Amino acid sequence: MKSDECIVGIDIGGTKILSVVVNNKFEIVSRCRKKTKGWAKDIKPAERIIETIEESIQKAGSPKIIGIGVGAPGPVDTKNGIIINTPNLGWKDFAIVDILMEHFSVPVFLDNDVNLGTYAEWLLGNNKDAKHVVGVFPGTGIGGGLIINRKIVHGASGGAGEIGHMTMQIDGPLCGCGKRGCLEALASRIAIMKEISALILRGESEYLYEKVGTDISKIRSSIIAEVIENGEKKVENIVRKAAYLTGVAIANLINILSPELVILGGGLIEALGKIYEEEIQKAVKEHAMPFLRKKVIIEIGKLGDDAVALGSTLLCLRKLEKIKEFGNENVNKGDGK
Amino acid sequence: MKSDECIVGIDIGGTKILSVVVNNKFEIVSRCRKKTKGWAKDIKPAERIIETIEESIQKAGSPKIIGIGVGAPGPVDTKNGIIINTPNLGWKDFAIVDILMEHFSVPVFLDNDVNLGTYAEWLLGNNKDAKHVVGVFPGTGIGGGLIINRKIVHGASGGAGEIGHMTMQIDGPLCGCGKRGCLEALASRIAIMKEISALILRGESEYLYEKVGTDISKIRSSIIAEVIENGEKKVENIVRKAAYLTGVAIANLINILSPELVILGGGLIEALGKIYEEEIQKAVKEHAMPFLRKKVIIEIGKLGDDAVALGSTLLCLRKLEKIKEFGNENVNKGDGK
Repeated sequence: MKSDECIVGIDIGGTKILSVVVNNKFEIVSRCRKKTKGWAKDIKPAERIIETIEESIQKAGSPKIIGIGVGAPGPVDTKNGIIINTPNLGWKDFAIVDILMEHFSVPVFLDNDVNLGTYAEWLLGNNKDAKHVVGVFPGTGIGGGLIINRKIVHGASGGAGEIGHMTMQIDGPLCGCGKRGCLEALASRIAIMKEISALILRGESEYLYEKVGTDISKIRSSIIAEVIENGEKKVENIVRKAAYLTGVAIANLINILSPELVILGGGLIEALGKIYEEEIQKAVKEHAMPFLRKKVIIEIGKLGDDAVALGSTLLCLRKLEKIKEFGNENVNKGDGK
Repeated sequence: MKSDECIVGIDIGGTKILSVVVNNKFEIVSRCRKKTKGWAKDIKPAERIIETIEESIQKAGSPKIIGIGVGAPGPVDTKNGIIINTPNLGWKDFAIVDILMEHFSVPVFLDNDVNLGTYAEWLLGNNKDAKHVVGVFPGTGIGGGLIINRKIVHGASGGAGEIGHMTMQIDGPLCGCGKRGCLEALASRIAIMKEISALILRGESEYLYEKVGTDISKIRSSIIAEVIENGEKKVENIVRKAAYLTGVAIANLINILSPELVILGGGLIEALGKIYEEEIQKAVKEHAMPFLRKKVIIEIGKLGDDAVALGSTLLCLRKLEKIKEFGNENVNKGDGK
């Protein structure tokens, strides 16, 4: 990468699109963020994404862009550059890579957002020597990113890493996916909110009732954190239970994959990091085998909201270097390996 | 590999050592099997292993041996060629690779037995084009072998694949490993036997009582199969439950790793294959995500008792080819990659 060249990385989320431009020293030169809401009605998603990218490039002083990386909610077809299905955004088989390549005339690469968030936290963090990494991102859902032998694991379908749908309790509560007892049904933000709703309805959390009444849409992770800081033990116990269960799932991944590094990210970790760290460490001690867990570093990611967009730039950079190395023009739509 | 060259593969199990010799067409030229029992007393394990290998070579007509592969119960240190800990055999830090290299003066390679069993069933089976493979071997314990991007997964510790210690039920029954609710504690042969013991003590299985009285050491998997064939529904239900739980664990692995191929092996599958296949297919349908499971082939391995020993010869062959390719003399003690 030359000194006048830049790469764009975008993060397409359920509520926002974030586009960042990085230079050849891997510094973020500019950021542009737009809401994704309302797409289904009047604004075409492709136009909104292009607009966000263009604005970030302008903000950066219109440097030479040599490639674009895209992170999107899974499942994605990384080989053909297609977002297969994003229920939250209402897309099916959205050929994002072709659209952006045509508009910007540069190579474009796609991967799952949690894969890329894990990838960035790993390569830009303090433990980039690790060869085997597990990323766990609890939020509305619970996403996972797996890196084995320094490569993102996509599996046969391209959609590996669905750790949120690991069955943790047979015949347990119903999950959004239709089955029962998934980690997500027990420990996602929605699972936590379900328990909190019952507290409110039973009149067992005065502080929360004062704060939001009975409108549960107003309860954000930050409010949950505030309530706990104010000593609302029942809310704290709900969060601790979810965090512990997330830790049991992490212990299972340690038993299965034996990583050196586990990275925690996502909305719940950002708001409630201390509780999550405590409960996850406890659960890992109780549920992972000693010889597999003894050297594992478990840490909260440092990149916050930029993680996925930065992961997208890293994906792009690596792919471009691969193209140079092999002189292979067919890797424009990369498979993330 | 030249036409007059052969490779030795050995399988060191809890009850037997099996040594096979294969020729350059990958045909088994000879087999030798010895019991492992009584090692702790008068016979040194290294001597018994050497004896078994030597006998198999003699039986094969003393061909030129170019390498030896060793499969041993985990965890093993594949890099340094050491069997770290095998509670069933009473070994700790057993430097098997050095011992055999010194005696036979050929390269020797070591890996975990279930990894090698999975490896052989994959490469010598009908689906060797698969890039991502999960092997599940239920028996006294429940072993796992993982292949991702055509490579055996060892993880940071070398001991990845401990799927038997995936927590399936928090606060569930006690496992041999000391924690609770592991797959092994719910679905291994020992877990099945525990339930059957209760049936016998309650006088609820006449047929079993006639067959073995109250001496549960006499109940082999083959006897369980016979009892079920004779219509003992309560025993069948115990086995079905264990098989279903094994299937839920397999569904979890499909959700996490998205393999194309799942191979079933081990004592319980050999004796009770039909019940296991039915229940595993049912559990995978109910617990794996549709887009991850739809193309997965789940099949019973074809190699039976030879699987691990043949996997050992394959490991050796691949390592030797790697040595030639890279001219690297330091890979004698391979890392199984």
